[in-house]
Amino acid sequence: MAPLFEDQVFLAFSTYATIVMLKMMLMAPMTAYFRFTRGSFSNEEDVRGKPEEEKKKLLRTHPDVERVRRCHLNDLENIVPFVVIGLLYALTGPDVSTALLHFRVFAGSRIFHTLAYVLPLPQPSRALAWMVGLVVTFSMAYRVLSATLQL
Amino acid sequence: MAPLFEDQVFLAFSTYATIVMLKMMLMAPMTAYFRFTRGSFSNEEDVRGKPEEEKKKLLRTHPDVERVRRCHLNDLENIVPFVVIGLLYALTGPDVSTALLHFRVFAGSRIFHTLAYVLPLPQPSRALAWMVGLVVTFSMAYRVLSATLQL
Amino acid sequence: MAPLFEDQVFLAFSTYATIVMLKMMLMAPMTAYFRFTRGSFSNEEDVRGKPEEEKKKLLRTHPDVERVRRCHLNDLENIVPFVVIGLLYALTGPDVSTALLHFRVFAGSRIFHTLAYVLPLPQPSRALAWMVGLVVTFSMAYRVLSATLQL
Repeated sequence: MAPLFEDQVFLAFSTYATIVMLKMMLMAPMTAYFRFTRGSFSNEEDVRGKPEEEKKKLLRTHPDVERVRRCHLNDLENIVPFVVIGLLYALTGPDVSTALLHFRVFAGSRIFHTLAYVLPLPQPSRALAWMVGLVVTFSMAYRVLSATLQL
Repeated sequence: MAPLFEDQVFLAFSTYATIVMLKMMLMAPMTAYFRFTRGSFSNEEDVRGKPEEEKKKLLRTHPDVERVRRCHLNDLENIVPFVVIGLLYALTGPDVSTALLHFRVFAGSRIFHTLAYVLPLPQPSRALAWMVGLVVTFSMAYRVLSATLQL
Repeated sequence: MAPLFEDQVFLAFSTYATIVMLKMMLMAPMTAYFRFTRGSFSNEEDVRGKPEEEKKKLLRTHPDVERVRRCHLNDLENIVPFVVIGLLYALTGPDVSTALLHFRVFAGSRIFHTLAYVLPLPQPSRALAWMVGLVVTFSMAYRVLSATLQL
């Protein structure tokens, strides 16, 4: 194992970064599930062999599929910055407890965000979940910039 | 702090990676701003409590919102490769001044790209800004592959 | 060069991470190519100076362009988790041959996925290519979580 893993914070970062990445990746099978149950595909070759009339219906967008796709894109937009800034943050040597607090709150906020988006829960559940994740990432970015600023 | 931060190039990378990630994250509040001022939402639950007729209007797409969303996606497509390849590039031990040149030009090109996209400025401003960022990332990728090629 | 590069696995990771990132970045020029040959643009300023009637036609979406854009987004959704989880995986000190197997299969699956999507090849080529990449990433994530679990 690399010496980096002797650091508790880096171990915790690895765990949480992997968890939120896996959460993000689960959006793809979820999209597939909705595509098949709702009958809504994007590609001609995905509906091959069906009668012409049914094809047209199957190639229409469906609100449930579009909802999951927006949720997936929102994950990309928020989880990727968390992972990048979180990696640098972990290297700045924060307290283990402070770092864990950041990672746990972020992971929780994104899992709740997915539930709020897909079920969906009434607003402002989704907006709040999104904002909590944003604040965590900004807080880590602040520490990274304070520690490393080298323009 | 991790020993990696004893390296000037890695410090500079951390600073610029955080800056471009923050820039990317700012697209989300900007999208929200345009959604509210233009009255264009994607989700039923975001327009809850409005009269039925107004709901329909509020759920239409608006060109200004779509423009910011395209800009955000373009950031994801370009800034994520910069961060990944830039991290590996920083570890190959380039000159500080060469590395800083790469990072500064990239950050500048993406900030200008956002302005060119959102205002919008006449073409080819946006195309050029995008291409400059691409060239910087290719240049770093070339060094990473020269230094590490292990197929 | 950073001490990390004394590790064969990390060298191999750097090579493959750079390759799949470059592959992803090539989707952008490919989109541009289809936009120009198919005459389908998203932005008013991209068709400046054309007669009003032609402008309208040029601002319509075209299935070939949308197909490449979906492929690009699919890359983002799959290659980014590979890179993040792969970096952590490389640091856990796996066998060089096992790691190379993971990296090679993933890179191959994504290159084939692009061909299957853009040409397009009949299904289930694309679905299988996507699933192979997913399984590789899950396998690396399993090792990372086994090695680092720190909740």
